[in-house]
Amino acid sequence: MRVDLLEAILARRQPRFIYTLPTFQNPTGVVMSLERRRRLLQLAKRYQVPIVEDDAYGEIYFGEEAPQPLKALDTYGNVLYLSTYSKMLAPGLRVAWLVAPEPVIERMGLYKQTFDLNTNAIGQWIIAELMQRDLLNEHLLRARQCYQHKLTLMLDAIERYWPAGGRVYPPAGGMHLWYRLPGDMRARHLLREAAHERVAFVSGELFHVDGGGHHYIRLSFASPEEKHITEGVRRIGIAMRRLMARRTHSDERDLPIERLPVV
Amino acid sequence: MRVDLLEAILARRQPRFIYTLPTFQNPTGVVMSLERRRRLLQLAKRYQVPIVEDDAYGEIYFGEEAPQPLKALDTYGNVLYLSTYSKMLAPGLRVAWLVAPEPVIERMGLYKQTFDLNTNAIGQWIIAELMQRDLLNEHLLRARQCYQHKLTLMLDAIERYWPAGGRVYPPAGGMHLWYRLPGDMRARHLLREAAHERVAFVSGELFHVDGGGHHYIRLSFASPEEKHITEGVRRIGIAMRRLMARRTHSDERDLPIERLPVV
Repeated sequence: MRVDLLEAILARRQPRFIYTLPTFQNPTGVVMSLERRRRLLQLAKRYQVPIVEDDAYGEIYFGEEAPQPLKALDTYGNVLYLSTYSKMLAPGLRVAWLVAPEPVIERMGLYKQTFDLNTNAIGQWIIAELMQRDLLNEHLLRARQCYQHKLTLMLDAIERYWPAGGRVYPPAGGMHLWYRLPGDMRARHLLREAAHERVAFVSGELFHVDGGGHHYIRLSFASPEEKHITEGVRRIGIAMRRLMARRTHSDERDLPIERLPVV
Repeated sequence: MRVDLLEAILARRQPRFIYTLPTFQNPTGVVMSLERRRRLLQLAKRYQVPIVEDDAYGEIYFGEEAPQPLKALDTYGNVLYLSTYSKMLAPGLRVAWLVAPEPVIERMGLYKQTFDLNTNAIGQWIIAELMQRDLLNEHLLRARQCYQHKLTLMLDAIERYWPAGGRVYPPAGGMHLWYRLPGDMRARHLLREAAHERVAFVSGELFHVDGGGHHYIRLSFASPEEKHITEGVRRIGIAMRRLMARRTHSDERDLPIERLPVV
């Protein structure tokens, strides 16, 4: 979120709400600074626009403490805080939650009912039980260590197997590594090449509404097994080198993104 | 569904789809006759309007066999058949299914994802396990017997405790009993009176878009325990008699429906 550009938009467009994922943003893993958070809250208050804070990854932090959510700084009741058990426990539960002023919760509860006739009870019971037995906190301790270890493996493998010239953005939490490809290499070309090695990733284009992100890729280190991380990175490295070798001969045509499983 | 009135509507209004609950309809418990089903399918085919068949209650039948769904007669691929485990197993699972032509399923799958990001996996696993062990069929055998027995208790209690003049519509399946109150007694007046006895039901008005249903009530026999059925019916009977006695003195004002738990 470029908070410095936000005021112009708020004044001109009068949006209904501001959506932001300030902690371990997907795909970049970036954490919004405290200064920007304060500025964002001020602006939202001045222009009377509610903020929807999506904090799906906040509990997956690798530092000493979790970054404080925007909601913790919200003295105005202007932040609708969303989080989920999908990232900290299991996406198959389909259980999330909202922290907001009571009238907002009531209204959103009504809308939600018209779409899904309530959240499944069994998932909620499982989570309540895990919390009452303090197993959720135990699990989170382990999950943080596990994901951080996987990230280290991924960074080591990139160091070892990938050509120079790219740029890695090591996150302080979350599940994703954001990477700038070397030179003018395009993510969709690399994706096609990597498919031959039977490995895939998400092209940065999918995260841009303005057609940007061509030179960026997102890698997930949370879901794959440790041995697959190193091997997957090695194979993408092979694809990168092949692409670079080929580029010295001829230009790539612009190819459509193919249907591939997403890592 | 008044199939005899449908053609005029199809010709004039060109609806996007026809929604129907042909088997053990909620609230009346009515089963659409085979003749009407055939006619409905013919009309839908002629006017090229898809039918959404909601068969939530079809497995809760009290006769020898389940009435055949509309979908079983559909040679044209025009029926989108919906059912759910909510009524046959547990609403807390929030798992349902659709039978339809593949392109329709693909499209609806996409729409569904934008609303709920998929159905919870644990509920689906539980159901798959119950089916593989054939426990779902065992459960349904018991559920049918249990609900039929509860219906019998309810009908007996009505016979015993309620004043004459009303009309009962005993269903051949499902979970609800539809009842026409005696004379000009209004459901909302009775509901208010019944609240004093700490018992509630659903007023027929809630099932009418045209302001009808004032003299009808819907009772659920599936959810309450057996002992509560008889006692609940007895108490509604007290409320009915009190209302009738009062009516001989003065007219009731028209009162708003109060917020009450629904039976």
